[in-house]
Amino acid sequence: MAFGDVPLVEVWRGGRLESLHRGHAVICDSRGVVESWGDPAAVIYPRSSCKMLQALPLLETGAGAGLWQKRLALSCASHQGAAIHTGAVSEWLAEMGLSEGDLRCGVQDPSDVAERNRLICTGDSACQLHNNCSGKHTGFLMLNKHLGGGSEYVELDHPVQKAVKAAFEEVTGEDSPGYGIDGCSAPNFATSVGGLARAMARFATATETDARGRAMVSLREAMAAHPEMVAGEGRACTELMRVMDGVAIKTGAEAVFVAMIPSKGLGVALKITDGATRASEAAIVAILSWLGVLDGQHPMALKRLGGPLTNWRGKAWGELRLAEGFC
Amino acid sequence: MAFGDVPLVEVWRGGRLESLHRGHAVICDSRGVVESWGDPAAVIYPRSSCKMLQALPLLETGAGAGLWQKRLALSCASHQGAAIHTGAVSEWLAEMGLSEGDLRCGVQDPSDVAERNRLICTGDSACQLHNNCSGKHTGFLMLNKHLGGGSEYVELDHPVQKAVKAAFEEVTGEDSPGYGIDGCSAPNFATSVGGLARAMARFATATETDARGRAMVSLREAMAAHPEMVAGEGRACTELMRVMDGVAIKTGAEAVFVAMIPSKGLGVALKITDGATRASEAAIVAILSWLGVLDGQHPMALKRLGGPLTNWRGKAWGELRLAEGFC
Repeated sequence: MAFGDVPLVEVWRGGRLESLHRGHAVICDSRGVVESWGDPAAVIYPRSSCKMLQALPLLETGAGAGLWQKRLALSCASHQGAAIHTGAVSEWLAEMGLSEGDLRCGVQDPSDVAERNRLICTGDSACQLHNNCSGKHTGFLMLNKHLGGGSEYVELDHPVQKAVKAAFEEVTGEDSPGYGIDGCSAPNFATSVGGLARAMARFATATETDARGRAMVSLREAMAAHPEMVAGEGRACTELMRVMDGVAIKTGAEAVFVAMIPSKGLGVALKITDGATRASEAAIVAILSWLGVLDGQHPMALKRLGGPLTNWRGKAWGELRLAEGFC
Repeated sequence: MAFGDVPLVEVWRGGRLESLHRGHAVICDSRGVVESWGDPAAVIYPRSSCKMLQALPLLETGAGAGLWQKRLALSCASHQGAAIHTGAVSEWLAEMGLSEGDLRCGVQDPSDVAERNRLICTGDSACQLHNNCSGKHTGFLMLNKHLGGGSEYVELDHPVQKAVKAAFEEVTGEDSPGYGIDGCSAPNFATSVGGLARAMARFATATETDARGRAMVSLREAMAAHPEMVAGEGRACTELMRVMDGVAIKTGAEAVFVAMIPSKGLGVALKITDGATRASEAAIVAILSWLGVLDGQHPMALKRLGGPLTNWRGKAWGELRLAEGFC
């Protein structure tokens, strides 16, 4: 995966390069790669950046017909377990006659500060609703109800994951060379950075002429309309989608980031080789600014790239910069 | 800094390389470099890995004569603000007629879980005692009392920092090419990875024949004798020093790690280019095991390198591995 990667994001302190992040980044339109840094053929795990691909069968099969936009956004979310997220997932499960115990994502402590503090001070325990993937898994359960599969919907040979894999390969345009077990226990299918960018371009240029097109438009629009459901307060996906117009973006663990830009007909995918989120956030800000869909001087952009980094006494110690040749 | 770095630590998932960390690592004896990966001349900020260098003037001047070992360990610590750390710093300040307000490290929330939870549930605020560098700063204040400098002891031209810089350059054997402002507001002097490893070899081979030798032996032995003061429960420095014999190790932000190995007369320094702590911990475990001073199969070692990595449901998803050619 790593070879052919190039410097993308630098960490500067005291007028000196302190740390460096390399990676791959690709921009596609409907016909293919229009710009790239590093190697578009590098194979990666998209991790949570492909949740909108994993949600396609939910809509294409009709299982999710009529789902509210907020639930569609949640099905693509890596949320932080705030009350708005756990409450919405809980209601959605209850309407299907299901409960938290039907989830197979595992228990994760919330990263939302208010909810974390509530649990600490009341002695309540975190549950699977708090898992950042609980919305995606509730979507899997809704699809499973339609498909009539067994309860272990994260197994590779389960009808839910077979449907996900088929959609994933069709939309990336590649046979996946393999899979890994994700943090939430679902299979995560590998693809190239270029394949992931191609998938994002398909989402960006989708029209409502067939089931897949309708599903893509619905998911993309739901994410852009409800950024608070996709991640949460303080998070890059939420804060950056709020200051763009119709652009949907999504982070993935180990420093993947994707964007769907309908106004330009473009899709973006990037992977930082070392897995550092600070660098994937800086890199997606760079690309979105470069493409003219994000104001690089907006405080939410400067928070991720170019703004002063300060220490415990508020003293500026340095900043993130783009490596030469990137954007 | 980055160029000439080599792959050191890999992250594997589903039988595939997911992420990769490059860097530089150097082992020195008293005569110079005995082994290296990457470029020993690469210039880095040692960050908190050089706290034992910053503490030298405290002892060499006689300012810290008679200091308990626990306080010496604290003066080299990046502690996590647990009660044992804040209590010890508070007492030390009080004995000098000083208080928390004399510190210039800034307020940092504790990473110790019990203390963090206490603050959240009582509504108490974190203070400068919780700052991971409060022990180092208390050492600076004790030195300052001896030197008679002003209150702003973190300024570059303050007698405390001048003494630190002189000791730093003598022990690394290099003129520092510059400095950055550290998280705790003190200047952090740049040096090469090789220079930092040379300094560690000097600590490892020091004898009590002069003031510097006595200071080095005292600091090294205090760190090894009180690992709980150097970091805290669950942390690599603490857990690994507990299972080695007389070896002192220290992490630094942005993925620096150093080791002093008296039994072998060796010093180690490494920097992961991208700043990832998981990789610097894996790399120091690799080197310490390779040198025969750490059991690589000990649970505390496997926690950092080679043991299974598990997700929210306890399923193994992969592991960290050494890159080919490293150790």
